[in-house]
Amino acid sequence: MKNKKKLFNDPIYGLIQFEEEILYELIEHPYFQRLRRISQLGLSNYVYPGATHSRFQHALGALHLMSKALDTLTRKGIEISKEEKEASKIAILLHDIGHGPYSHVLEHTFLKESHEDISLAVMEKLNKTFNGRLDLAISIFKGTYEKKYLSQLVASELDVDRMDYLNRDSFYTGVAEGVIGYDRILHMINVHDNQLVVEEKGKYSIEKFLIARRLMYSQVYLHKTVIAIDQMLISFLQRYNEQYILGKTLENNNFTLLFDLYAQKLPVIDTFLLLDDVDVMQLLKSKMNDEDPILRYLSRCIVNRHIFNIYLSEDEISSDFIQECRQKVVTRLKLEKDEITYFFLTGVEKIKTHISKDEICIIDKTKNVKPVSDYLVNFSSEISINKNYICFPNNDYFRA
Amino acid sequence: MKNKKKLFNDPIYGLIQFEEEILYELIEHPYFQRLRRISQLGLSNYVYPGATHSRFQHALGALHLMSKALDTLTRKGIEISKEEKEASKIAILLHDIGHGPYSHVLEHTFLKESHEDISLAVMEKLNKTFNGRLDLAISIFKGTYEKKYLSQLVASELDVDRMDYLNRDSFYTGVAEGVIGYDRILHMINVHDNQLVVEEKGKYSIEKFLIARRLMYSQVYLHKTVIAIDQMLISFLQRYNEQYILGKTLENNNFTLLFDLYAQKLPVIDTFLLLDDVDVMQLLKSKMNDEDPILRYLSRCIVNRHIFNIYLSEDEISSDFIQECRQKVVTRLKLEKDEITYFFLTGVEKIKTHISKDEICIIDKTKNVKPVSDYLVNFSSEISINKNYICFPNNDYFRA
Amino acid sequence: MKNKKKLFNDPIYGLIQFEEEILYELIEHPYFQRLRRISQLGLSNYVYPGATHSRFQHALGALHLMSKALDTLTRKGIEISKEEKEASKIAILLHDIGHGPYSHVLEHTFLKESHEDISLAVMEKLNKTFNGRLDLAISIFKGTYEKKYLSQLVASELDVDRMDYLNRDSFYTGVAEGVIGYDRILHMINVHDNQLVVEEKGKYSIEKFLIARRLMYSQVYLHKTVIAIDQMLISFLQRYNEQYILGKTLENNNFTLLFDLYAQKLPVIDTFLLLDDVDVMQLLKSKMNDEDPILRYLSRCIVNRHIFNIYLSEDEISSDFIQECRQKVVTRLKLEKDEITYFFLTGVEKIKTHISKDEICIIDKTKNVKPVSDYLVNFSSEISINKNYICFPNNDYFRA
Amino acid sequence: MKNKKKLFNDPIYGLIQFEEEILYELIEHPYFQRLRRISQLGLSNYVYPGATHSRFQHALGALHLMSKALDTLTRKGIEISKEEKEASKIAILLHDIGHGPYSHVLEHTFLKESHEDISLAVMEKLNKTFNGRLDLAISIFKGTYEKKYLSQLVASELDVDRMDYLNRDSFYTGVAEGVIGYDRILHMINVHDNQLVVEEKGKYSIEKFLIARRLMYSQVYLHKTVIAIDQMLISFLQRYNEQYILGKTLENNNFTLLFDLYAQKLPVIDTFLLLDDVDVMQLLKSKMNDEDPILRYLSRCIVNRHIFNIYLSEDEISSDFIQECRQKVVTRLKLEKDEITYFFLTGVEKIKTHISKDEICIIDKTKNVKPVSDYLVNFSSEISINKNYICFPNNDYFRA
Repeated sequence: MKNKKKLFNDPIYGLIQFEEEILYELIEHPYFQRLRRISQLGLSNYVYPGATHSRFQHALGALHLMSKALDTLTRKGIEISKEEKEASKIAILLHDIGHGPYSHVLEHTFLKESHEDISLAVMEKLNKTFNGRLDLAISIFKGTYEKKYLSQLVASELDVDRMDYLNRDSFYTGVAEGVIGYDRILHMINVHDNQLVVEEKGKYSIEKFLIARRLMYSQVYLHKTVIAIDQMLISFLQRYNEQYILGKTLENNNFTLLFDLYAQKLPVIDTFLLLDDVDVMQLLKSKMNDEDPILRYLSRCIVNRHIFNIYLSEDEISSDFIQECRQKVVTRLKLEKDEITYFFLTGVEKIKTHISKDEICIIDKTKNVKPVSDYLVNFSSEISINKNYICFPNNDYFRA
Repeated sequence: MKNKKKLFNDPIYGLIQFEEEILYELIEHPYFQRLRRISQLGLSNYVYPGATHSRFQHALGALHLMSKALDTLTRKGIEISKEEKEASKIAILLHDIGHGPYSHVLEHTFLKESHEDISLAVMEKLNKTFNGRLDLAISIFKGTYEKKYLSQLVASELDVDRMDYLNRDSFYTGVAEGVIGYDRILHMINVHDNQLVVEEKGKYSIEKFLIARRLMYSQVYLHKTVIAIDQMLISFLQRYNEQYILGKTLENNNFTLLFDLYAQKLPVIDTFLLLDDVDVMQLLKSKMNDEDPILRYLSRCIVNRHIFNIYLSEDEISSDFIQECRQKVVTRLKLEKDEITYFFLTGVEKIKTHISKDEICIIDKTKNVKPVSDYLVNFSSEISINKNYICFPNNDYFRA
Repeated sequence: MKNKKKLFNDPIYGLIQFEEEILYELIEHPYFQRLRRISQLGLSNYVYPGATHSRFQHALGALHLMSKALDTLTRKGIEISKEEKEASKIAILLHDIGHGPYSHVLEHTFLKESHEDISLAVMEKLNKTFNGRLDLAISIFKGTYEKKYLSQLVASELDVDRMDYLNRDSFYTGVAEGVIGYDRILHMINVHDNQLVVEEKGKYSIEKFLIARRLMYSQVYLHKTVIAIDQMLISFLQRYNEQYILGKTLENNNFTLLFDLYAQKLPVIDTFLLLDDVDVMQLLKSKMNDEDPILRYLSRCIVNRHIFNIYLSEDEISSDFIQECRQKVVTRLKLEKDEITYFFLTGVEKIKTHISKDEICIIDKTKNVKPVSDYLVNFSSEISINKNYICFPNNDYFRA
Repeated sequence: MKNKKKLFNDPIYGLIQFEEEILYELIEHPYFQRLRRISQLGLSNYVYPGATHSRFQHALGALHLMSKALDTLTRKGIEISKEEKEASKIAILLHDIGHGPYSHVLEHTFLKESHEDISLAVMEKLNKTFNGRLDLAISIFKGTYEKKYLSQLVASELDVDRMDYLNRDSFYTGVAEGVIGYDRILHMINVHDNQLVVEEKGKYSIEKFLIARRLMYSQVYLHKTVIAIDQMLISFLQRYNEQYILGKTLENNNFTLLFDLYAQKLPVIDTFLLLDDVDVMQLLKSKMNDEDPILRYLSRCIVNRHIFNIYLSEDEISSDFIQECRQKVVTRLKLEKDEITYFFLTGVEKIKTHISKDEICIIDKTKNVKPVSDYLVNFSSEISINKNYICFPNNDYFRA
């Protein structure tokens, strides 16, 4: 068998390579290759044209950072066995394996499970194929392994997942503000009482990390146009689902398969793993001349980037105001009754930059451990900004 | 009407913006939005995971460089009218508007026209919609306009198209060798006798540009794995076309529509403009369980990245050797007779880094103009490396 | 006369060039060339080896950003005459012309004037040579010109000076956290009621700018080792001054010249303009075998990078504690009475990231102007962290 | 003793760190700290303002690349002992320890030894201080150690010295063309028959490396303005030396000390190690009002950047033409007889990009080793471009 330890060329980190052969076997698996067809930021490239990167790249990048993190801890005298290192790397490599197409859109509609739950289920499937060689990785992923800090590297306020995606999304969108000093942070981590901690001299890098994350939420993840597109897509998929349930489409594709299983409360994972961005976009393209005006209009708008108007408010929008708006939109656009749900979209998206119960901890020279918020006097330990939105078709394009 | 002069965030050039409103109108047109769904480097992301960028970004980037080039010439006293500037920018914005999905794969199979010809046809269609406002741009694109150098900025050995794609492909693949000093080159251009020339002090930047291009060909555009994937995809599409012609599939999609028109020698452009990467990938995904073993095997290999073995030679491969190879492969893999054409792939891909008849010219201080090859004593003026290939399924995966 | 509009190659912004010929004439003047010999960050390269950049580069960089800022304002319809543009550019080009060697060290010791005052005096000298062509620039520099916003671009909470130095210092130190989205900020500025304002959609970039500045203060400008070196250098120069006053050195150099003028309350500017980093370092090198043990020890430590121990506290250090420390140090190092002042250094350095009286203002879509602190709920409008220090020789090296 | 394994922040490679404690001890030594005061590119910052980086940084960078190279070889199964690794790192860390101020200017005038010879002598001095712990490093540096490839990593056509300086000089000058794929090259190296070789798939990176080097010579190292400044500086130092020998200056500084020793054929190393850029610049500054008009004029020109006119030719300049030029210059500038030597400068600087006897070798899959020139058909194995120059004062400034 040929040498599998090939080099990957990453635009951000340069040439990257791994020691453990199983990582290459996992990367070659069709489940992992599927991540090539799932963009990291969905339709955010409608706002940031450069942001076409895939979850495949992100998973490799996070794996690379995990290697660096484990090297740092080893250098600082933390004993981590070869098996634990391999398992930690597997856990991060597969952390997004259960991710659906177009970001979290499907999760919000047709799935009860979060993508983390599906990732776990997929890892368990893979574990059978790999004859139990993923046992330890799964335990670390679930957070049940005794060395807590390994799980924290995979999923916590300061995991390598976040570090890679902030860096990567910042790089591809061109939003310089999201750049973080991941290199410095990864040199400053340590372990104390089985917990991942950051040495005090790294506190400013952590502050910068928290700020960068908040900025990326404002400027990218919850950019108003991105919210509008996501809501349009959800609206489209809901309509399609409804039409299917009502028997108005007799198609047979990965979506309808999923709808059927979901309706019958049967396991959906095998079907879910067939889905990727291609299915969503192909479905949209195929409805651009559909008989149903709602599907037709929504698919055209999404494909051709005719984005709905959107109004955002950080305060809750009163139901009176929403009602008033809805009335105006209905009148102006002459909406039919059954169109309103699909064309007048309202709700809330949330930013949380910091969850106090699982805060990043700083250790000082006297081995004293305190949450980072104790250090950052001007920085609230929990920030939760809501983006309440009202979203509806733009007059210029309506029924064009 | 709202202000359309929005800013684009480009990971390479930063924030970019244009003066002429018509550019924004063209960008909003569905024909141009289609370029979002056409990746610049096709399946090269199977080799360079970062290379997921679209032709949409490339067209904006080339437009940005055109603005810079026109600014330089203006600063050097070349008189270019407002209309000519706008037209040059339109020409470069639309230079790839006729590009098909997955690079040049379709051009090699089902189209007689090059993508440049289709781009021209699309520009003429758009010109009707825009009431003749593209007349001058089309003339520049076709090279018939009196100011030759404007056409040369759009398409020549040193056009802004090449400058952007070398830069961009280098950035996204992470192949640092492809980086060119576009900034310096764009400061060194000038016009002499109606021709685009480069000032002598820019000669080393031109040498670097030529080398970078050759390296990008070797390491990216004609990377052996990229050649293999492209040939697999061509093989798949040819089989699908054959099955359709023989009436073995009764499907109705953008491909079959194209096949029909093509067979009847009817104009294909409207249909062609419906096609993008999504159609190709969806077709592949839909054949992974097809009855036809050839389609089934090829689609699975492409989707799951089980790449054929490939042997490359810069010298022509003798027909005896090819025959011998073919026999071995047929025997080892037990190929049926009609499978051979689809599973044993041979041919040649070519690198040409320099075409002498249209060479870049250097102007010295005494206004003497000479081709760049006169300056680069160690650099042959025409390099043409052939990549002859033989390509067939990998035993490990065959009929898996 | 040959064309002076040459290109400068800047590692950060690429090729930069200016329209106005007077800028090139000013750059060629010996006063401006002197800035090549004044490093931007003094001895901070003892901590960040990459930080060897000069004030010369910084001034060109700030000039480049000024051009961009004026372009943005013009594009947004603010009328700025050709003369005003030239003057604004001159003002920023010369904003640091009065800077002394090694950062602010000399200002803290032998000068009553701030470097801004000296810059003004130098500009007035130059104005004579240039026959009054700097009149308007001086008025903008002084803040007396009617168009307030031009002065604010030169010196305010959001001036192009800060934007360039944050970027540049971040680039050369390699402290990624200092990177700011200067490109975005410069696109978001506008003028309202004669004041420089930032459009609301730029508010997050401003937040990031404020944070980056605070981080650069912590990690670079007030890095503990940097404070120690600066204090050692001040201590050395004070001793040298004292020895000179006491007639113990009979040297004749740019420093002694300055001491004489200063003592006689004569104008120092002409002499001051002869001083640069070379004089300071040469003086240090020349004292490494001096008869005076204090000069000898301090110069050796600085030249060979034997840095004093330093203890920092954000709270004021009680005089009792200082007294106790001093006693210990005196005992351990066996300090002579007259050595104490030079070897036991204590004081405070301050961070101020935000001065409320001159806060950056944000303008919303309804033309409402509010200070940025109203937008940044979790961000105090005035942060003032003090670095109280105690600094003394390291035992390992003392009297080595 | 405190932990010395500190992190260095390098703008190019990020955070860098080393395992071996002796490296930190060597870095702390005054001989090595001296490299902070020796700029890598001398007065090239007169052309590229960003190029203010020091030999100190370069040495650390080369050390970092050496670590990477040794890691690659180890990963490929080459056995290198801990001692050999440490010694190779020491050898590269100290490879420039004998470098004089302002590039090779002094070597061309007052020294018989090359800087490599002086480096060796300094290493031998240090070896005494370090009780023989540098024995192996010295043997590798001299090329006498049995494992040839370790010496080749330190000094050969493809050593880590070149890799770092091409990268670093490219980064700081902003000349993008010099960027090399050092990361890729360092992954492609191997050892065969005790020789350093590059695997065949790295051949294009090597081609790019050779081209980049040639371009850096043309655009930076032998830039016409850089040649002019260097010749002006040599001319100044020769005049100063002559004046000293003639007893016309009675100064006592590191230069005159060197002149004395040199005249008496005594060992110069201890004195040489006192010299750095500061001495040269201070000497220049101190002569700006000298009685001797030659010293006065040359020092003013250099300090204030009034650069001589220079004419370059790749062909040898005939002595007739030189004679004719000299006559014109003498007449026009009214040069005194003894001024001619100092003001009319002529000679030749050479580019050699490739020395055939020690060519980089490529190893193919069949373990066949051939020189890289066999692979690069269009690339001459030895390129030697001469820059013949004539250089004299610019009328505009003469005797100003």
